[in-house]
Amino acid sequence: MTISPLVDQTIAAIGPLDAAAVAAAEARQGVLTKPPGSLGRLESLSIQLAGILGQPIPQITGKAVIVVAGDHGVAAEGVSAFPAEVTPQMVFNFVAGGAAINALARHPGLTIAKVGYGAANIARGPAMSREDAVRCLEIGINAANEQADAGANLIAGGDMGIGNTTPSAAITAAVTGADVASVTGRGTGVDDAGLEAKIATIRRALEVNQPDGSDGMDVLTKVGGFEIGVLAGVMLGAAARNCAVVVDGFISGAAALIAWRLCPDIAQRYIAAHRSVEPGHNVGLQAMGLSPLLDMEMRLGEGTGAALAMPIVEAAAKCLAEMATFTEAGVSDGDD
Amino acid sequence: MTISPLVDQTIAAIGPLDAAAVAAAEARQGVLTKPPGSLGRLESLSIQLAGILGQPIPQITGKAVIVVAGDHGVAAEGVSAFPAEVTPQMVFNFVAGGAAINALARHPGLTIAKVGYGAANIARGPAMSREDAVRCLEIGINAANEQADAGANLIAGGDMGIGNTTPSAAITAAVTGADVASVTGRGTGVDDAGLEAKIATIRRALEVNQPDGSDGMDVLTKVGGFEIGVLAGVMLGAAARNCAVVVDGFISGAAALIAWRLCPDIAQRYIAAHRSVEPGHNVGLQAMGLSPLLDMEMRLGEGTGAALAMPIVEAAAKCLAEMATFTEAGVSDGDD
Repeated sequence: MTISPLVDQTIAAIGPLDAAAVAAAEARQGVLTKPPGSLGRLESLSIQLAGILGQPIPQITGKAVIVVAGDHGVAAEGVSAFPAEVTPQMVFNFVAGGAAINALARHPGLTIAKVGYGAANIARGPAMSREDAVRCLEIGINAANEQADAGANLIAGGDMGIGNTTPSAAITAAVTGADVASVTGRGTGVDDAGLEAKIATIRRALEVNQPDGSDGMDVLTKVGGFEIGVLAGVMLGAAARNCAVVVDGFISGAAALIAWRLCPDIAQRYIAAHRSVEPGHNVGLQAMGLSPLLDMEMRLGEGTGAALAMPIVEAAAKCLAEMATFTEAGVSDGDD
Repeated sequence: MTISPLVDQTIAAIGPLDAAAVAAAEARQGVLTKPPGSLGRLESLSIQLAGILGQPIPQITGKAVIVVAGDHGVAAEGVSAFPAEVTPQMVFNFVAGGAAINALARHPGLTIAKVGYGAANIARGPAMSREDAVRCLEIGINAANEQADAGANLIAGGDMGIGNTTPSAAITAAVTGADVASVTGRGTGVDDAGLEAKIATIRRALEVNQPDGSDGMDVLTKVGGFEIGVLAGVMLGAAARNCAVVVDGFISGAAALIAWRLCPDIAQRYIAAHRSVEPGHNVGLQAMGLSPLLDMEMRLGEGTGAALAMPIVEAAAKCLAEMATFTEAGVSDGDD
């Protein structure tokens, strides 16, 4: 498959984890001053990080949350409890520093890299042209490269886009084969009737577009969204630079599914931040073999779940790097 | 009930949450720029914090993890996979900075406030005298006051003590009425035969001592441990100073049960950090109506789970304090 030179090169640069670093990290976890396994998921996370970063003792050198906004023509179907004008309003809120993700990850910076005036209504036809889909991926790859160049090796995407749980559910159903009803939630908070209508809209989007769930580009083009495409690009770009990719909630999860279809090896570089209230997120994570770190009953997006999980990832790296071994500390181990 | 002037005063200073601060925080969560409820447990946590600190917009001014070590005569019954000498060895490791809790919470400081040469073997008689139990509580209260004086308002205890899951299981069974087998786990890693023997030892401890589960002092004296008593004191002292108490794992959970029996109002000031692999921890938390923030499959103690949860508590406070309201940000809300 050829998408574009940049996208192709990026995908080609994503290989399996560094096996030697994984083995070294695993061995070190066994001799640190604690009962074996007692740090639970911090231990497995540190070993995964070693493999991703290609370092026996992985060091987080910088963190970035790349928040991407997109409009969705399908919002016209009444799938959200909020009006579409909220998307640009919230972009101003991000820039002014007043959104939840600002409270959790204080880093300024707005990059304008416009793809278009929003995705078309997927209930009536494809979300975007193939050219736009390629452009989304490339913008994301470039954004990830910029952060990696600045020293980040723990990178997450975040989303803002009224209506975007609708394409995310369509993507999740298309890629995993799950029934639409099982992957559709209330998003910003639609009522029972709204939920039924939303499920019908997503079914119509899949019928009208017939996306091939095994083909990430086909799924993105037909039932995706601009910010979802950019987020998939961010993940591909970050993984190609041997960065760990922290997957936020449902919209980022849908982007992760698209990137995974484009490059199956990427899933080993994903760290699932949290179990969203949106039921489809869990379906997508399971399909990729991922288990979320947090279960905080959150459903906001913006990268908030990822920002919350990053200190846990850092803690995992710190334990591996900074704890003494039994021999160093003169502590008797369990076999004495 | 009179324990000692200091303990009595401390307990008397612990009241219900500040209802006005709770109401103000709840109202503010409803107008911040996000769909209502979309920050999930971060929202409820911020509201609880408001009530604990007595501030409509709670500010975490400092954090402390107070790690306490104790020897346990019951280790002679072979209840641990590690020899008892590991307890003092690990204290040296804490001071040298090589333990997991050092990696997660870099703060120096060893305070020597010796109660005695370790708790007696609870399988044969009481763990300690009433005088020692009072001394434990007072040392813990003083330690919490010292940290509160230094500006901390988010305080956790952590434990080190080979054999201490055995008294913790005995405490949990005594206080909650749960069957011993349901609250006994593998601790540092005993095998199947070791687990059976450990359960039998705990049953013997309860038969020999007959602790009154409704009386925290009786439970501590008969089937407790020195570090567990100090940790209960830390929790009482922190709560009396209107600090939030982050409850670490199983041993801290047992201490939390003792403090709760001494002062039922304290549970509203507890924040359960994580679900330990030790099954008894969950039984104790449920008895107090607490639901843990993290489920990381950890079972190390030392305050590691609490240290990992503290950034989440800080994130909850930050969202409430720093997010813009719909009006401030000029964002349309869901009723438009």
